[in-house]
Amino acid sequence: MHMDFEREIYLDHAAATPLDARVREAMEPFLIERFFNPSAPYAPAWETRHTFEAARADLAHAIGAKPAEVIITAGATESVNLAFGVLQAAQTHVITTTIEHSAVMACAKAYPHTLVPVNHHGLVDPADVRAAITPDTRLVSIGLANNEIGTVQPLRAISEVVNNVRQERLLAGNTTPLYLHSDASQCAGQLDVNVSTLGVDMLTLNAAKIYGPKQVGLLWVARGVQLMPLVLGGGQERGLRSGTENVAGAVGFAKALQIVVEGRKDEAARLIQLRKSLQRQLTEAFPDAVVSGHKKHCLPGLLHISFPGLDAERLVYLLESEGVYVATGAACAANKATRSHVLEAIGLPPEVADGSLRLTLGRLSTEENTARAAEIITRVVRDEYARINPSRPLSDSGVE
Amino acid sequence: MHMDFEREIYLDHAAATPLDARVREAMEPFLIERFFNPSAPYAPAWETRHTFEAARADLAHAIGAKPAEVIITAGATESVNLAFGVLQAAQTHVITTTIEHSAVMACAKAYPHTLVPVNHHGLVDPADVRAAITPDTRLVSIGLANNEIGTVQPLRAISEVVNNVRQERLLAGNTTPLYLHSDASQCAGQLDVNVSTLGVDMLTLNAAKIYGPKQVGLLWVARGVQLMPLVLGGGQERGLRSGTENVAGAVGFAKALQIVVEGRKDEAARLIQLRKSLQRQLTEAFPDAVVSGHKKHCLPGLLHISFPGLDAERLVYLLESEGVYVATGAACAANKATRSHVLEAIGLPPEVADGSLRLTLGRLSTEENTARAAEIITRVVRDEYARINPSRPLSDSGVE
Repeated sequence: MHMDFEREIYLDHAAATPLDARVREAMEPFLIERFFNPSAPYAPAWETRHTFEAARADLAHAIGAKPAEVIITAGATESVNLAFGVLQAAQTHVITTTIEHSAVMACAKAYPHTLVPVNHHGLVDPADVRAAITPDTRLVSIGLANNEIGTVQPLRAISEVVNNVRQERLLAGNTTPLYLHSDASQCAGQLDVNVSTLGVDMLTLNAAKIYGPKQVGLLWVARGVQLMPLVLGGGQERGLRSGTENVAGAVGFAKALQIVVEGRKDEAARLIQLRKSLQRQLTEAFPDAVVSGHKKHCLPGLLHISFPGLDAERLVYLLESEGVYVATGAACAANKATRSHVLEAIGLPPEVADGSLRLTLGRLSTEENTARAAEIITRVVRDEYARINPSRPLSDSGVE
Repeated sequence: MHMDFEREIYLDHAAATPLDARVREAMEPFLIERFFNPSAPYAPAWETRHTFEAARADLAHAIGAKPAEVIITAGATESVNLAFGVLQAAQTHVITTTIEHSAVMACAKAYPHTLVPVNHHGLVDPADVRAAITPDTRLVSIGLANNEIGTVQPLRAISEVVNNVRQERLLAGNTTPLYLHSDASQCAGQLDVNVSTLGVDMLTLNAAKIYGPKQVGLLWVARGVQLMPLVLGGGQERGLRSGTENVAGAVGFAKALQIVVEGRKDEAARLIQLRKSLQRQLTEAFPDAVVSGHKKHCLPGLLHISFPGLDAERLVYLLESEGVYVATGAACAANKATRSHVLEAIGLPPEVADGSLRLTLGRLSTEENTARAAEIITRVVRDEYARINPSRPLSDSGVE
């Protein structure tokens, strides 16, 4: 099924993004003619090696890092797993939050861990992170922006906490390292992902979320961070992630990252306007609707809205039949029919959580199709309320 | 640099293969229009899920397996690492050979292990495998065909050894499982890779070696084999390898595998003729040249030939300037300037090993360009012998 972009409206940019035509063009030669193994010893193979390393340098440049600090992986989940390699020690402990993506959550649960709570807006308090750090803590892993509700964490302040503890350990002669990792997969197109500005020691990014190819990600690792290899073999990627290099993927990722970083400010401003307009139309139509996430510290293009008493899965189905594609929660876990741990963590009551839609705007969003989406969602939600409770008075918001 | 296939001759099909145009065509929709996350909840996303599962079924069918037994990975190295997950136990031991690919070798060395020797032709004796099995042995991992010298191992006989030990353990009440894994990355286009015929419990395959996309592989896992996950997260691939699915990659891999399996007999016969002709021309020109590998149990398209006293790296460079692309050894390790552990294991003296070329034929090979390659290699090798030893009499083989 090909999308009919004139009619259909894609509101799930957080789950997947279409490949940018410029990215596709950059990858093209490496899909076909320049197929050589970068480790082979003749000149055309050396050229692919050179291209691959140039892509790594471009990726590093885009996040204010050095090329040697960038490990190219098969995606964000792999990057996260690689970052957790700092925990492989006898005495170990990791801190993350109650609202992390399943990749970080699953890795954390494989070690002694503490889940720091968040407030009703999904915000972590750096003081809570400080309080959770034990002498064995080696890693704090906190996503820059939450993938379900879009809350952006105060990473800089958390980084200061981590730095203070490092200083204390140094003075106390405790040689246990402590690192801050952030999964910023959702963010590169919308927030600043400069590693110095963020103050992190490791950063995960993903090409598939920024109009790049699937199955490519990176882990940026600050100099001095000691990682255990995730995949053993020929010793590629500094021995941390063996396997023949994905030249086309790296080239596409570099191009995609360059494009979104350069256009970020304008695109973020545009998405904020679209999201506000969508939110206004829906909350005016349904005053009982609950918008989750933080009003200010949020992903520009994400609107998480709950319609109390409705069934989100039914809404998804009804909207789909109108050509509007939305998510009920994190796409990664969507096929598991369990209630979102994120919504539970921010204290959303079950009857509200169960009627939640995640609407994520992006390049395919326009003023026209966002307004049209608002109309369709309003109609579908209104019909659902009428269906489940015919006697319920319509709200006084002008919807009829 | 694009290859000029009229002039240039690619003799390194074991390192990388160009993408088949039919494979490319099959992948095309999933690179652009059908970009949806297979875990998303609306119909176009379900369709990509369905396509992905259909590709898995095609992959399974091509190797005589069931879809649920196929784990799709980011390549052979990752598949091998996943297979080694059976070793994560308190009492554990793995057996492999002295000539394995670096992926298996690196994984084996992370556990208590025994490296079974091979004979001068690179063949493993199943009796040696039997002798190496201890009560703690959980895995025997032996590549179907060696990637440097092309020797094909008696997997079926090794499988019988493994089965016998399993029976003995059952009778003795030893519940330690024992599995046979084979990395057949080099083989799918040239040998039978039906899992029942091979008698293995796990099989690694790679798309990039069979004219498919890079960064896709599979691990076939027989029912009942208990694996530890390699990558934790959203629970994709039965929880063994989390991360958003690579739909385009799986579709391309399935198409590529189907094509090579269907055409295998004809292509293998064609490659055998080409390789024999290449070998004849080179050994007639240089009677001192040493051909390694097994005369009968060998990959159809691989010729490993050593020119004693010459420097293979110089030969690669000289041949490259004539447009002939060859390898000195395993491409994965080629950039490390260490002597091949495979050639050491088969007892090739250093002065012979150092003058070794690996010539691998494949789809880009024709009678015409193989004959031309033989002429060019003959000329280059003859000139090199003349250069390093001007007084050395020319062989009586008609070369002048």
